[in-house]
Parts: sequence; C-alpha cells; structure tokens
Amino acid sequence: MAAQPARADQGLVAELREILGERFSTVMAVREQHGRDESYHPCHAPDAVAFPRSTDEVAAIVRACAARRVPVIPFGTGTALEGHIAALHGGVTIDTSNMKDILAVNAEDMDVTVQAGVTRNQLNAHLRDTGLFFPVDPGADASLGGMTATRASGTNAVRYGTMADCVLGMTVVLADGRVIRTSRRARKSSAGYDLTHLFVGSEGTLGVITEITLRLFGIPEATAAAVVSFPDLESAVGAVILTIQSGIPVARIELLDEVQMDAVNRHSKLDYPVQPTLFLEFHGSEAGVAEQTGAVQQIAADFGGADFQWSVLPEERSRLWRARHEAFYAALALRPGCRGVTTDVCVPISRLAECILETKKDIEASFLLAPIVGHVGDGNFHLIMLVDPDDPKDMAEAKRLSDRLVMRALAMDGTCTGEHGVGHGKMDFLVHEHGEAVSVMRMVKMALDPANIMNPGKIVRI
Amino acid sequence: MAAQPARADQGLVAELREILGERFSTVMAVREQHGRDESYHPCHAPDAVAFPRSTDEVAAIVRACAARRVPVIPFGTGTALEGHIAALHGGVTIDTSNMKDILAVNAEDMDVTVQAGVTRNQLNAHLRDTGLFFPVDPGADASLGGMTATRASGTNAVRYGTMADCVLGMTVVLADGRVIRTSRRARKSSAGYDLTHLFVGSEGTLGVITEITLRLFGIPEATAAAVVSFPDLESAVGAVILTIQSGIPVARIELLDEVQMDAVNRHSKLDYPVQPTLFLEFHGSEAGVAEQTGAVQQIAADFGGADFQWSVLPEERSRLWRARHEAFYAALALRPGCRGVTTDVCVPISRLAECILETKKDIEASFLLAPIVGHVGDGNFHLIMLVDPDDPKDMAEAKRLSDRLVMRALAMDGTCTGEHGVGHGKMDFLVHEHGEAVSVMRMVKMALDPANIMNPGKIVRI
Repeated sequence: MAAQPARADQGLVAELREILGERFSTVMAVREQHGRDESYHPCHAPDAVAFPRSTDEVAAIVRACAARRVPVIPFGTGTALEGHIAALHGGVTIDTSNMKDILAVNAEDMDVTVQAGVTRNQLNAHLRDTGLFFPVDPGADASLGGMTATRASGTNAVRYGTMADCVLGMTVVLADGRVIRTSRRARKSSAGYDLTHLFVGSEGTLGVITEITLRLFGIPEATAAAVVSFPDLESAVGAVILTIQSGIPVARIELLDEVQMDAVNRHSKLDYPVQPTLFLEFHGSEAGVAEQTGAVQQIAADFGGADFQWSVLPEERSRLWRARHEAFYAALALRPGCRGVTTDVCVPISRLAECILETKKDIEASFLLAPIVGHVGDGNFHLIMLVDPDDPKDMAEAKRLSDRLVMRALAMDGTCTGEHGVGHGKMDFLVHEHGEAVSVMRMVKMALDPANIMNPGKIVRI
Repeated sequence: MAAQPARADQGLVAELREILGERFSTVMAVREQHGRDESYHPCHAPDAVAFPRSTDEVAAIVRACAARRVPVIPFGTGTALEGHIAALHGGVTIDTSNMKDILAVNAEDMDVTVQAGVTRNQLNAHLRDTGLFFPVDPGADASLGGMTATRASGTNAVRYGTMADCVLGMTVVLADGRVIRTSRRARKSSAGYDLTHLFVGSEGTLGVITEITLRLFGIPEATAAAVVSFPDLESAVGAVILTIQSGIPVARIELLDEVQMDAVNRHSKLDYPVQPTLFLEFHGSEAGVAEQTGAVQQIAADFGGADFQWSVLPEERSRLWRARHEAFYAALALRPGCRGVTTDVCVPISRLAECILETKKDIEASFLLAPIVGHVGDGNFHLIMLVDPDDPKDMAEAKRLSDRLVMRALAMDGTCTGEHGVGHGKMDFLVHEHGEAVSVMRMVKMALDPANIMNPGKIVRI
C-alpha cells in the first residue's frame, strides 16, 4: 500500500518558488482561503499554494511534488460542497485562477478549448458574438476545470446534459508529471478506453485537468419562461414526468416546495401561492417555443396546475425566474446567521414523488428547517438544511436526515450525489451505492496514482 | 508482465461441460463460426464456445478460465468489423445468444434493462406498445451487449447520441469472476469514477458485459424523410454544417457520394442524379417536423441542392430512404464476388469536406473502387473499398488507402475510428491517435486484468 503522504518541506518550497516566483505562496491567509469550500466542512489548509499559468508549469509542480510524495490538490473557484479541495494531508494546492485563456473557439465545429481556470460566465461573455453558448449552469460562476473535475450539472442538464455530456476532451497532468490529451476533437470515437469520461468527475484524484474542449450550442432563436403552482407535490411531479415522457424538450424544469416558496415570498417580497411550484424554460424557434409552452400548459392544467404565467420577453422572464434564482439566499434568510447543509440525491423519476414525500415527513418531524429545490426533470433534488454549524445538536440532526435521505434514494435505485460529487463528505455512501464496484475504482486509482498524491482522501480510501 | 495465455485443456473443458451441459461446444464448425466477424480479418477460432444463460453462469465460466489463465472472448452477433471476436490466443468464447431476456421495462423512467444477447430489433419489437424506442442503429441487428462493448452508433447518433450516451449502467463480470454493477438507475450521478463509460467501448478487454440498462426515447409523433442532391461535395457538406449550426435537430443526415449513388441506381433500378446526395430524417411534432423540413430545404437550396423530395408517409419515407438502406450491397454489386474493406474515420465537421475531397483524389488515383457513405452530421464517413481478399495486391492497396486516410483524419484532429472500434485491426493507429494516453489505457487494462485473459490482443498491447 501507499505510504503516508509527505508534507511540503523547505526543499520543495525552494524548488517551486524557483519555478513560479511570486506566483507561489506559503502565507497562512492564502493557505486557509484554499482549505475550505462553500460547504460546512472544516478548513484543511495546504502547506502552500501555487498559481501556475500553463500546463507545463502544472507538470513541473506535479513532478516536484511527486519526487517527494507530497500531495497535489487542484483548486478552481472553491465553490465545491463536499470538501473536495480540503488539503486533508497537507501538500500543495494548484490554484488555476491564472489559467484563464480561451485557447480556441471553433465556431463551425461548435466547440471551444479553454484553460481550466476559465469560468462559465467568462466563457459565455467571450462567446456572445458567435451565436453560441455553453449551457451547463451549476449556479456558481465556477471554473470549467472544477466543473469538469466534479461532473457538475445544474438547471438545464435536462436539455443539454451534464459535464459528462459536454466535455469532448481534456489535457491532463498525470501523477508522475506526464501530460496526456484524453481524446481528439471528433464528435464521436470508438478508439480505445474512454479516458475523457474517466477524468470527468475524478475530482483531482487521478490527475490535474489543465485544458478542456467543450461542446457549444447555438443560442436559441427564442426563449420562454413559465411558472405554475400545484395543489400538492404529487401533482407537480406528475406533470414533470408526463412532460419528459412526451418528449417536450424543456430546457429547465425546476421544483420549489411550499416551504421554499414561502421563503422566497418573504425574502424577495413576492406573493406567489405558498404551494409546490414549477419554474420552466423553453428554447427553440419562435413557433417551437410557443408549441412547447402550450403543450406543458395543457399538461400542467391536467394535474391541477394553476395561474400558468409565461413570457418570451427578457425582462418578464427574469421576473418569473427571480424566485428560483434567489431560492438559496431566501432559504438562508429563514434562519438569520445559519449555514445551509445541502443534500443532493437523484432517483429514477418514477420514484421522485415518493422520495420527496417521505423526505418531507422526516423534515416535518424534525426541529430543522429544510426547504426543497429540485432539478426535477432529472430526478435530482436538494434539501437546504438550515443549521448553526457550531451547534452539535443541529449538525447531528442534519447528518441523521441526510443519512436517511441517501439510504432512501439508494433503496430506490438512486444515487447519493446527482451533481455535487463525493469529496471526502460522501465517501462512506459510495460503498453503499456501488458495493464491489468501489474496488474497481480503487484499482484504477492505485494504477494511475500509486503513491496516492493526487488529492488524497477523496472518492476512495487507499 | 503477464505470461502468455494458456489454451483450454481437458480439465477446463470438463469443468465447463459440467456447468453448461449441452450449451458448451468444442465442435470445429462452431468454433470457426465464432472466430471471424463480418470483416476481411482472417478466422481465429477459439478452443471452445460456451452459451451461458445468466450472469452467474458467465461468472462461473470466467472463474474457471481465470484459474487456468485461459482467455475469455465475449461474442454477440459476430457483426463487428475489426476482428474484435477473433480468438488470437485461443480460449473460450462466451456467446450471449442464450441471454435474450428483457428484464425490466421502466416506461415512466424511459429506461430498460436487458441481457447482453438481446438485439436492437428484438428490443424495439418488444417496446412497440409502450410508445418508446431505442434509437441507436448501427445497421446490423447487433446484440446490445456487443453494441455496448464496441461503443456503436450509426445513422441517428446526430440526434440521439451513441452507445456512450444511451447506456445508463451495466452488470459486468470482472476478470476474476466478481460481478459489479457500474451505476444505479438515476439519470445522472457524480458518485465516483465513471465506470459505465469505462466499460462502454472496452471491447471485452476489461470484463464481460452481461446486462445493460439503456435510455429509451418517445416514438416521435411525426417523422419525415427527405432526399436532396448537390452539384458537388463541398456544397453538400456546407449544407450539413449550416443545418447542424442552426440547431435544427435532424434525426439522421447521411451523405452518399456520386460513386455510391451510381451503384445504388444500378443495383436498385433507381434514377437518382449521379451526384452527392443527402438523405435526411426529421423527428418531432407534426408542426415541428414541417418547420425542420422547411428550414433544411431552404438551407439546401442556398447550397445549390436540387430536387428536394420529402414525405411524412411511411411508404414514401421507405421509398426515399431505400437507396441509403441498400447502399452497402449496392456497393458490393459494383464488383461481383468482392468483399468490402470499410474505413471509419471521423473528423471535426469543419474539416469534413476537405477530408472527403482529399480522400476522393486518392481513390481516383487508385485501381480500387471505393464508394463513400457518411454519417456526416457527426463528421464520420466510410469508404467501402471493394477488394478480392485473396489478391495481395488488392489488400495492400486497401491498406495503403486506409493508412493514408487515417493519417489525414488524425492530422485534422479526428479519430481513426468513429464507431467500429479498435479490435486488433486498428491497434497501431491508437498510438498515433492518443500517444502517451495509450499508456494510461494500458495501466487501466493491467489493473483490471493483470493476467491478460479478457479478450487478449485487442485495443492495447500488453
């Protein structure tokens, strides 16, 4: 088995300073800033932080660390939720915020190659005049390297897929400092093992992703937004299932439960019915969008949906979706000073209503507040459990609710994490979910990183 | 390094006969039938052929073979094109033709779980009353296990994706006989390494796929077919690029060059213009299909497309597409008694016209006939080189043309195989295509199959 990783010593610090100059720091404030993400997980600061500009510099850093068996932790924007970037065993964090070049826009091929530190908003601003856009939207303005490493998705995965669907290839620095490209730029290939998908979602444990080629999509000719409220959760989810089954290509279909709608009304001074509510978006031609909207309005009506509002006008669309965009901060405002512990199960859509309803019973019997927001077209939903992270009773209750929810989702053939990833927060659940298959993951990890220096302590235990 | 694999001895034969009874054969005719696919690659017969009915039986076979380091070669319908099922080192072929159970249709979730031997036509016949269908169509009525193992695609990948997009999870028997499930049935997950995509396209070299969960799609309300001919290849490909860029969700968009159109006219007694011709299919609502068809007709006209014919009526659609469906046999009929050596490059669509035109110059300068058929929406096209496989001059010329074509595609950032796979026919090209990344493939192979008994001699050399 791999030995315990080493800490960064003076020799390594000197070598990295030689390579990076001012773009290398051992200052405590910088280290601590890189030791925690946006979750409740405690800070684990690295020994040092490097700010490379290129694949070559990343390779040099990894070679220097590998020679001393010092851990390497990739860092994008720090917006992960399961402690992905915690330096559990110290080591050197590779912050990609100096890797923000958009290397090649191939408009005819509808793809783009970027450095790992480019954020999704930066990319879409850059693309504006091309008529193309990159759709994956996890909420945060995350780096595309981080989104690739965590297999991120978000609100419009139901139409455009997740990072697993939108990454065409990557440049990766391996654990020994060698550099590979996982695939060519052809739209499809049967040429050997699918290394692209192996590295998407590998959370820095198999290598450092330095450049990514992404699929782009045409900005739709027309976009419509809609909001509709339902008498109960079953009806709302029933309307979602029929919409998906009917093959209506909705771009987004989000559920907010009545607790979340109440929070939104209070926080944003709105007056929505305090009922389960769907927020939808449609992309297509003008006629296509009108047809999709009409079809969903009919389906919603059949399930008791009321007050169907919709618009194709940008300002109106923003107004209709405002409640959804402000949901997270509205939830936090229900309990001033709290933090949100977010769950992330995803189940087959046929089990979604049942999973949400059983979960709501748990929440109603609990002393914690926990609104629900869901990417329901995919069967993915989040509880935002409002906790005082310094109160052990709150944290124990959040863990109890979360454990029950994960086990419920697994019993329904679902997953413990639809889009947030494993980090070190969900490692135990991975065994419950995958059983013997975790040993295959471990074989892959040990083959590609025998010294266990690539983001150690994440995904699988070695 | 792994030792040379062993041959099946009397002890193994006795043990497997004990497990399988009559469903195990060492008869030469059966062995030879399993030693060659539909390509020009020579026959390599296994030592024996097993016909298991279940995952448990496959696991028992693999355990027995693993104990003696005897190769295991999975076999679906034998319709591969790169020698995937050739028993290069002898061993036991696992024929899945007795594994034809459709285990669970989850209509609400739009997925199905099947045994590996179920063929795509069998599945679609079974699904007919559900309003759902499985779209991936490689031409042959292949087994879904084989299609998964080779990452197959075909004519409608441009709309519905390849097997990489349509497989949700698998049951796999590993090289030591252990059984894993690669994922749950949730539509998306960030729970650990993506084992599903690792096994899709692994060609039996990492394990035997025994059950597959597949995405299904709603049978479209309306379908339209269209045919349009162009003055030259650049115009036809230009129309394709603009169609894709415009976000028109064509279900199929196939190119036949003028040589292939001439072959089709002769073989099927048709009278199409002997010009590059696009065959299209559109899926959607009635209004949506009419809108798509109109948009593409306009684009085609802008590129000089003439005689645009289209229909939504089933008989008319069959008539319009007949030339495409009969293309392969029409090509073979150009040279009676010949075999077809099929190439399979895929390039970024911006390079497609250039790649095809340079290739046509090669063909025109060659003594071999080689019509072109392309899944051009993906940038994928095939030459059907008409050879006498017993004539070394023909085979050498086919190899020369194929090598030049692959190198041309790689220089354009394309792949040596868009959908046929590597088998043992394209192993050398894999290194040209992936370089250092092939060593990562080899690390994965050696980690999961240290004794090199799973379909040895395919994808990577050990």
